[in-house]
Amino acid sequence: MSHRSTGRLTLPIETGMDEELVALVERLGADAVRNSDGTELPEIATELVDRVYSTYFPARGDQDFALAHPDTLTHIFLMSAPATALGTDPLTIRVMEGYFTDQLRPETDVDTERYWQVMDRTLGTPLARSAWELEGNGEDARVTITSPKPYHVYTVAFLAAQVWDSTQMYNYLTNDWHLEPGRVKERPYEVRRPEVWEHVRAALPAWLESHPEVDVVRFTTFFYHFTLVFNAEGKEKFVDWFGYSASVSVEALEAFEAECGEAWEPEDFVDAGYYNCPFRIPHPRFRAWIAFQQRFVAERARELVAATHEAGREAMMFLGDNWIGTEPYGEHFASIGLDAVVGSVGSAATCRMIADIPGVRYTEGRFLPYFFPDVFRAGGDPCAEANDSWRLARRAIVRHPLDRIGYGGYLSLAVQFPEFIDRVEQIVAEFRSLHENSGGERPVNSRHTVAIVNAWGSLRSWMTHMVAHALHYKQAYSYLGVLESLAGLPFDVRFLSFDDIRAGVPQDISVLINAGAAGTAFSGGPAWLDPELVASVRSFVARGGGFVGVGEPTAATPPARDGYPQAGAGAILQLADVLGVDRETGWSLSTDRYPKVCEHPIAEDLGPELWAGERQGDVFATTASIVRLHDGSVDVAVNDYGDGHAVYLAGLPYSAENSRLLHRALIWAATGSLEDLTEVWIADDPRVEVAFYPSVERLFAYNGSEAAISTRLRGPGGTEVSVDLAPLDSQWIDLATPAATPGEA
Amino acid sequence: MSHRSTGRLTLPIETGMDEELVALVERLGADAVRNSDGTELPEIATELVDRVYSTYFPARGDQDFALAHPDTLTHIFLMSAPATALGTDPLTIRVMEGYFTDQLRPETDVDTERYWQVMDRTLGTPLARSAWELEGNGEDARVTITSPKPYHVYTVAFLAAQVWDSTQMYNYLTNDWHLEPGRVKERPYEVRRPEVWEHVRAALPAWLESHPEVDVVRFTTFFYHFTLVFNAEGKEKFVDWFGYSASVSVEALEAFEAECGEAWEPEDFVDAGYYNCPFRIPHPRFRAWIAFQQRFVAERARELVAATHEAGREAMMFLGDNWIGTEPYGEHFASIGLDAVVGSVGSAATCRMIADIPGVRYTEGRFLPYFFPDVFRAGGDPCAEANDSWRLARRAIVRHPLDRIGYGGYLSLAVQFPEFIDRVEQIVAEFRSLHENSGGERPVNSRHTVAIVNAWGSLRSWMTHMVAHALHYKQAYSYLGVLESLAGLPFDVRFLSFDDIRAGVPQDISVLINAGAAGTAFSGGPAWLDPELVASVRSFVARGGGFVGVGEPTAATPPARDGYPQAGAGAILQLADVLGVDRETGWSLSTDRYPKVCEHPIAEDLGPELWAGERQGDVFATTASIVRLHDGSVDVAVNDYGDGHAVYLAGLPYSAENSRLLHRALIWAATGSLEDLTEVWIADDPRVEVAFYPSVERLFAYNGSEAAISTRLRGPGGTEVSVDLAPLDSQWIDLATPAATPGEA
Repeated sequence: MSHRSTGRLTLPIETGMDEELVALVERLGADAVRNSDGTELPEIATELVDRVYSTYFPARGDQDFALAHPDTLTHIFLMSAPATALGTDPLTIRVMEGYFTDQLRPETDVDTERYWQVMDRTLGTPLARSAWELEGNGEDARVTITSPKPYHVYTVAFLAAQVWDSTQMYNYLTNDWHLEPGRVKERPYEVRRPEVWEHVRAALPAWLESHPEVDVVRFTTFFYHFTLVFNAEGKEKFVDWFGYSASVSVEALEAFEAECGEAWEPEDFVDAGYYNCPFRIPHPRFRAWIAFQQRFVAERARELVAATHEAGREAMMFLGDNWIGTEPYGEHFASIGLDAVVGSVGSAATCRMIADIPGVRYTEGRFLPYFFPDVFRAGGDPCAEANDSWRLARRAIVRHPLDRIGYGGYLSLAVQFPEFIDRVEQIVAEFRSLHENSGGERPVNSRHTVAIVNAWGSLRSWMTHMVAHALHYKQAYSYLGVLESLAGLPFDVRFLSFDDIRAGVPQDISVLINAGAAGTAFSGGPAWLDPELVASVRSFVARGGGFVGVGEPTAATPPARDGYPQAGAGAILQLADVLGVDRETGWSLSTDRYPKVCEHPIAEDLGPELWAGERQGDVFATTASIVRLHDGSVDVAVNDYGDGHAVYLAGLPYSAENSRLLHRALIWAATGSLEDLTEVWIADDPRVEVAFYPSVERLFAYNGSEAAISTRLRGPGGTEVSVDLAPLDSQWIDLATPAATPGEA
Repeated sequence: MSHRSTGRLTLPIETGMDEELVALVERLGADAVRNSDGTELPEIATELVDRVYSTYFPARGDQDFALAHPDTLTHIFLMSAPATALGTDPLTIRVMEGYFTDQLRPETDVDTERYWQVMDRTLGTPLARSAWELEGNGEDARVTITSPKPYHVYTVAFLAAQVWDSTQMYNYLTNDWHLEPGRVKERPYEVRRPEVWEHVRAALPAWLESHPEVDVVRFTTFFYHFTLVFNAEGKEKFVDWFGYSASVSVEALEAFEAECGEAWEPEDFVDAGYYNCPFRIPHPRFRAWIAFQQRFVAERARELVAATHEAGREAMMFLGDNWIGTEPYGEHFASIGLDAVVGSVGSAATCRMIADIPGVRYTEGRFLPYFFPDVFRAGGDPCAEANDSWRLARRAIVRHPLDRIGYGGYLSLAVQFPEFIDRVEQIVAEFRSLHENSGGERPVNSRHTVAIVNAWGSLRSWMTHMVAHALHYKQAYSYLGVLESLAGLPFDVRFLSFDDIRAGVPQDISVLINAGAAGTAFSGGPAWLDPELVASVRSFVARGGGFVGVGEPTAATPPARDGYPQAGAGAILQLADVLGVDRETGWSLSTDRYPKVCEHPIAEDLGPELWAGERQGDVFATTASIVRLHDGSVDVAVNDYGDGHAVYLAGLPYSAENSRLLHRALIWAATGSLEDLTEVWIADDPRVEVAFYPSVERLFAYNGSEAAISTRLRGPGGTEVSVDLAPLDSQWIDLATPAATPGEA
């Protein structure tokens, strides 16, 4: 039943290789082509495929305009390095110390009482404007606190102009564009300014008219860049892929106040130097700012998308760069009217982050490796990277298929690696088979819906524990593994905020997951000191629900009373009674523990040790049964609570084994037994996963490992199928016929 | 110059081995003998030595009295296990669940509105007496909360009688005394009751009169046992060597209120189940209770000591068992008028804890191993234990000599191990040499005085990070190593509270040490949010002082405002500016760190990795120079601050290498250079230490390792001596003569 399929594939193309292009497009069945940074679309593009994509930069694309309007730069709030007054002498702080003056310029001409703020951090209070002086400008700008309190720490928050677009700066510096004649340092412009918006709105139709070959406008992206600040050496100093710091300006701040009636101060944005990163429990004022910018970005983007449609083209958004305020899972996103979203795929979680976006007709994942000389060089192994990326992403694509996949970079480099092209051909065929052999439906999921609960809820669906897009962070991977596992497991996954569950956990939820380190937005921090919230979750579990806690779930310390820490109900984990474990802080060393490890079926596939990643201190059991213990600290534990069940995991970096542990833990938490493991199909070997498509009565089994595996697949009612899979291989199995049916893969 | 020396040694003796005793006392030069638990003094005792010790138990010694007065038991506050109301039904809590009914009995006949307390832990508030009912008694006592708030957590605090003395219970259960006819379960009696005190006061003179052979009354101890609670299986459930839980009673609580005007509630004592363990930041009311009991215990103990003196005997206190309220470093201790303190020595720190006690004429250390069958058995190696104990204790004894040493247990067992007796002879000789060859003075210390600063200050000198006496705790050893190192380093060590330094660090202090995990009394917790305190320490360092932080020094999180965590000055380490490092909590992952490791002379003796013990999460450098990095987290860092210097250490379990690192860190922190390392003498090899006695112009060099070591000793002004030391060996070196002089060791 093998057949040549085409479509669903976007290739990056370039000039000077027309003949190869024709052959390659035919061979791979590509139906769309695109340019990349640094490549031009060849004239042959429109003849090759139905659809031609082109990047479009609404807020930095026209540097003639930018240079002609130097007062239209976008802005950012920055905080100086903290300085301690070592006495009563005036304390001078050079605000730009540590910042990259090529990127940023302090705004000394604004109302500095309003847009600058000097904080006494030892007291936590701002200084009156009369208590400090501002002198100099640019690199030399300096604030002098005339009579500091001795040995108090001070910081200066200030508004700065962004004189260089962050992404273009990164590309420029990374690719040595200073060597290329004609390259400019692109300046971003603030669309809130009327003259800018007039220009941006007018420029798009003109561009569309002059680019008739373009079928799909790939917006890269809209108006505000995520927070990306470089240091004095021109290296990354601060990065927050979700950061709104660079979405501020006098215009925006005035509008915010007018529109929302919200008082604000620079501290609301610099946040003591944490800049409201997503690990911080979001302050209501920061939430208000996000909502405010979402409304604005959606409204303006909608106009650009409408103009695109008016010209008969499609509008696609790149999920990155200037994506701030779009909030794909926010309430205004669908109103933008985009046809599609495209994003970079490096894992299952990032894949689902794109695939699950509501309100667009289709999604596209840009796969790794990017065709750049770092991988496509003598001795490089692009096949290995392709395999790794595919192995991870496939898990997510099976559960919720992207509509399209694509690549980026220099095709001329990739074609020098024929084995890589062979592998791409296989991957694309396997990808298409998921659409074609599935009958166009998503595979069956468990009847038990799982919800991740944190401070952010649905707004940050599939975005938890991310700092810079898909990069590894030591403090995050032990929790990110939960998301990565879920992205490929047969569960409907929802993202709920504490507000969503305070009055009661929604009826359709079977298991709540709370994962993260203490004091972060992901575990929740002080939210768990709310009696209503803890009672709600306890009630949910006691009436038969499931709760899975990872790391320091529900951790919160009641505020000190008269400088003396109060003990809570928990004591540190506020739902210690539900989990049956608590986090040691040194306060209960006096209590003897007699930890005994017992066997439990949720750990049947697990080795003697859990790969827990970065453990957060010690955890002891109160009422839970310990399933895995590491150096005296609980790694895995299970607890009965009323009619419900809870599982504690110290950490869960992604691996096939850990994903299987989570799978079992969720089923057990939901039901108190593991019978429902075969409610949908499951492979005996955790490295193999399987999807079931009931309409076509087919299974898709896929091997996520580099080993050849023979295993048994088990389904509802005791049905079984055996399967042999080569390394990384997959197989379609027709349940209507007794033998396995070779599929596309 | 070798000669037979005698004295300073106490031997445990027993009946039935008179001939051996005479020889052994002569051979070892013992000048005192004692009985032990389970042994009787033989009649020959008074002929053997000048001084005969006998144990004396003021508050449990007379069980006839105890049984005749069953209403005089001592009491303890206990907390039930927490229970969650899984709905609105009445919630019944069996208060004794998990407790040992042979040890404890709930007091149901007291005013239960006053001496019992039901807490809604979810709200943190107590319930009115009318909201709960008490039924049953003894094991069956149960509290029913008639209308609980659904899914709130409740606990019951209650007063319980101690029907069995904790230490006697431990000995009874451990030694199977139920098999020995005549053994009773001893009941402790409360000396606050007038009839008890009358009896106790009268019993001592009578006992002294009937025991003319006793020269030294070894009080074991006075009135209140440290907190030691057993579980339902008769095993240890809760232990706090510093715990005051068992010092309560109706009489005491009424007196407290009358004397101090302090309102109190049971929660003040049960403390959410932490029972005011020394790791908790001490609440003012708990401090008031300690002060109150100190005054009482000192006053009553003074009477017993006076009676002892009146009978012409000496009064010695055992530091343990019923020592609560004596507080050897408290303001009332000297007023008791004791002649001596004896305590068990297992390390340098415990040795200094005894040796440094002010207000007594002499101190005695009871050495390990105890002559018990667990070590003195076929295949046992008592010499190894003796060596290990001596190697650790010697470091402390050199710096501040105990006046006497001794052993405990069954001498009849020990004499079956002739090699052990040989080793004891050597150890005793080496111990005496420290008194004799030193000219009776303490060795020279550095001119730089070091102070450990924590919530307890001098009250708990040499007692930090202890839970049960000298036992190993995973959460404590990484900090206890600081104390253990200091106990044998050439520094004057002081213990200061935050109150002691708030208005300014005392003039004579060169370096402050703050060591511990976040939120504990030892690091300090919320104390560091006090602007006056942080300014005081900053000022001290900036003006040239030193600061050494270990673990999570000065860690504190400002209280949440509207459920939103505020960032402090620090940010987590409130003196992050002084230390140049901060603790990562996930809030600053967005900030790029470019950690570079540099060489620094404080780490010259250190291998590529610090043995940091249990690291507390990740630490990053802000302004500090990183000296050791472990998996991206700072292990050792140094920072200049004004004219002063700070050192950060992730943890410091005790080892010769770590002790040397601390030595160097302290000198560097004090002066910014290492010149003063040879201000007093130092050995090149960190395993060898050296003491200098100026009056006699002698060095005492001692090898703390199992290896033979040749090393160079360096002193002030470039003086040098070479020394060869056998494993564990020591040597006296006469600086007046060119060659090394063989000493006693």
